[in-house]
Amino acid sequence: MTTTKELHLVRKPEGMPRPDDFRLVDVTLAEPRDGEVLVENLYLSIDPATRPRLSRGHELDTPVMGFALGRVVASRYPDLKPGDIVRSAQGYRERFVSDGRYVGKVTPDPDLPLTVYLHMLGGVGFVAYGGLLVIGKMTAGETVFVSTAAGAVGSAAVQIARLKGCTVIGSTGSDRKAEWLRSLGVDHVLNYKKQAIGPAVREAAAKGIDVYFDNVGGEHLEAALACMNPLGRVAVCGMISTYNDAPVGVRNLSSIIYNRINIRGFVSSDFDELHPQFMQEMTQWLKSGAVQYQETVTNGMESAASALIGLLNGENTGKMLVKLSS
Amino acid sequence: MTTTKELHLVRKPEGMPRPDDFRLVDVTLAEPRDGEVLVENLYLSIDPATRPRLSRGHELDTPVMGFALGRVVASRYPDLKPGDIVRSAQGYRERFVSDGRYVGKVTPDPDLPLTVYLHMLGGVGFVAYGGLLVIGKMTAGETVFVSTAAGAVGSAAVQIARLKGCTVIGSTGSDRKAEWLRSLGVDHVLNYKKQAIGPAVREAAAKGIDVYFDNVGGEHLEAALACMNPLGRVAVCGMISTYNDAPVGVRNLSSIIYNRINIRGFVSSDFDELHPQFMQEMTQWLKSGAVQYQETVTNGMESAASALIGLLNGENTGKMLVKLSS
Repeated sequence: MTTTKELHLVRKPEGMPRPDDFRLVDVTLAEPRDGEVLVENLYLSIDPATRPRLSRGHELDTPVMGFALGRVVASRYPDLKPGDIVRSAQGYRERFVSDGRYVGKVTPDPDLPLTVYLHMLGGVGFVAYGGLLVIGKMTAGETVFVSTAAGAVGSAAVQIARLKGCTVIGSTGSDRKAEWLRSLGVDHVLNYKKQAIGPAVREAAAKGIDVYFDNVGGEHLEAALACMNPLGRVAVCGMISTYNDAPVGVRNLSSIIYNRINIRGFVSSDFDELHPQFMQEMTQWLKSGAVQYQETVTNGMESAASALIGLLNGENTGKMLVKLSS
Repeated sequence: MTTTKELHLVRKPEGMPRPDDFRLVDVTLAEPRDGEVLVENLYLSIDPATRPRLSRGHELDTPVMGFALGRVVASRYPDLKPGDIVRSAQGYRERFVSDGRYVGKVTPDPDLPLTVYLHMLGGVGFVAYGGLLVIGKMTAGETVFVSTAAGAVGSAAVQIARLKGCTVIGSTGSDRKAEWLRSLGVDHVLNYKKQAIGPAVREAAAKGIDVYFDNVGGEHLEAALACMNPLGRVAVCGMISTYNDAPVGVRNLSSIIYNRINIRGFVSSDFDELHPQFMQEMTQWLKSGAVQYQETVTNGMESAASALIGLLNGENTGKMLVKLSS
């Protein structure tokens, strides 16, 4: 008999989530039946995109929605065998039994740590890659602005933009993160907690912005719109500023008319066909050291709620993970 | 010696323009020299797009920027001869001498009144046509929402959308205009001065909105975004709500992420290559009566300032024109 701890949502958060919006629950799992697989999660992926779902569309008393990387313990599912590494979207759980839906086998590169498959080689890296190349139509020589540039998606985006020959502006919320971004070669690093974002972006973007990769919305988006070059593109990946607080209305949208700006919300399924190219290119970048990363890791399911709250407070540098097992 | 009255901008308007932001000026024109043409304007085109320019980029003590339809009086310009009809962008003037730049010859269809070349067969009709087909990627069977639907651009857009097989929602600000829109076959007509726009759009758009043709911005844009179908398109032609009043911030932009909405500001040069097809199709529609129009016409250069202010107050139905000569 297998047991598992799960983190359940027990109350829809208003504003910033609080620890008692969640409850740690012990669950006993049945043995996998024909066509099912038992997975032990190694790492939970803690993502900003979880936040808006908690207030809309998330059932109470079920595991918090999210991705994880795990190892198959037992399998009566045709394509998986014990020891296989899988990425899944089964929520914040130590172990789970699944019919194989939303469980995808990963073939890890022996020269790379497993965790990269939850960030640079996972959805996070892919959304940055396709967001810039397909949605943002970024080309060499352009100026690219990335908000929350020291986060998981942001740090992927700024490095991809540099490797593709662009001038990169990145915003972040602490001097420590700013330091890291400079070490990654970001051309202009802004600390929006120390500088008013509008004037700071304007100063950094002396030649205007061609692509704004938006993870924030609100005042960051206003600041970017005020500096967009004609035919500029805004690729909207997230709007973390709106997840916990009342949204700040964007007032300068009329600037998009004469500048003929394109603003596009997107998810990675918009460019699935790019995935093989992404995996090949990003794997090479990681192996050569051209792309670097940081991880902020907490330990055990007991830390999952505080990891999510910490992420929403910007306490992570790079990818936020919860380590469950080794 | 030729004289002309011109309406000059003498003060940048704050908020709604006032009559004394403008001054009627008598000007004496030199005879056209080699390469020049003397044009007598027949009609001024009064357009919302003039408003934002008055506060930004418009020189004081020069004619208010705008389009006109006129007749060549004297010409030493190779491609124009007396009697030719021309469309120009020389501002609010009775007559002008030009080196031919921004003066384009029109070959009027004998079965159509001249004024249609300032609206349905002019920039107004073309921006509606290309805005829907190219920027909005509208296809038959979709639901299209048009704001200021009884204005010049709006009334072109709703009729084009219907003729292309779409379900059309149109918003306007008076019962009289709403009545006209119903007579044009608009499926759902909203009077935003009598109904809160958000709930009204939601009720009309039972199947969601695929294309929003935005002339208003602000609350109209919020209302549309709240109802957009996945992969919906917002074609932003104008934002009249922001021209005179402090802009209302748009707070629900994060809705574009999971719905993968595209918001694109545009001007008609974005689809110049479509112009011959547009002229052919719109001419047929006008001749067959498939496309109808209204004009709100004032008389004489003395009325030009109040015509512009009236337009910004929504006093026009259809195209606002100033008749200068016959």
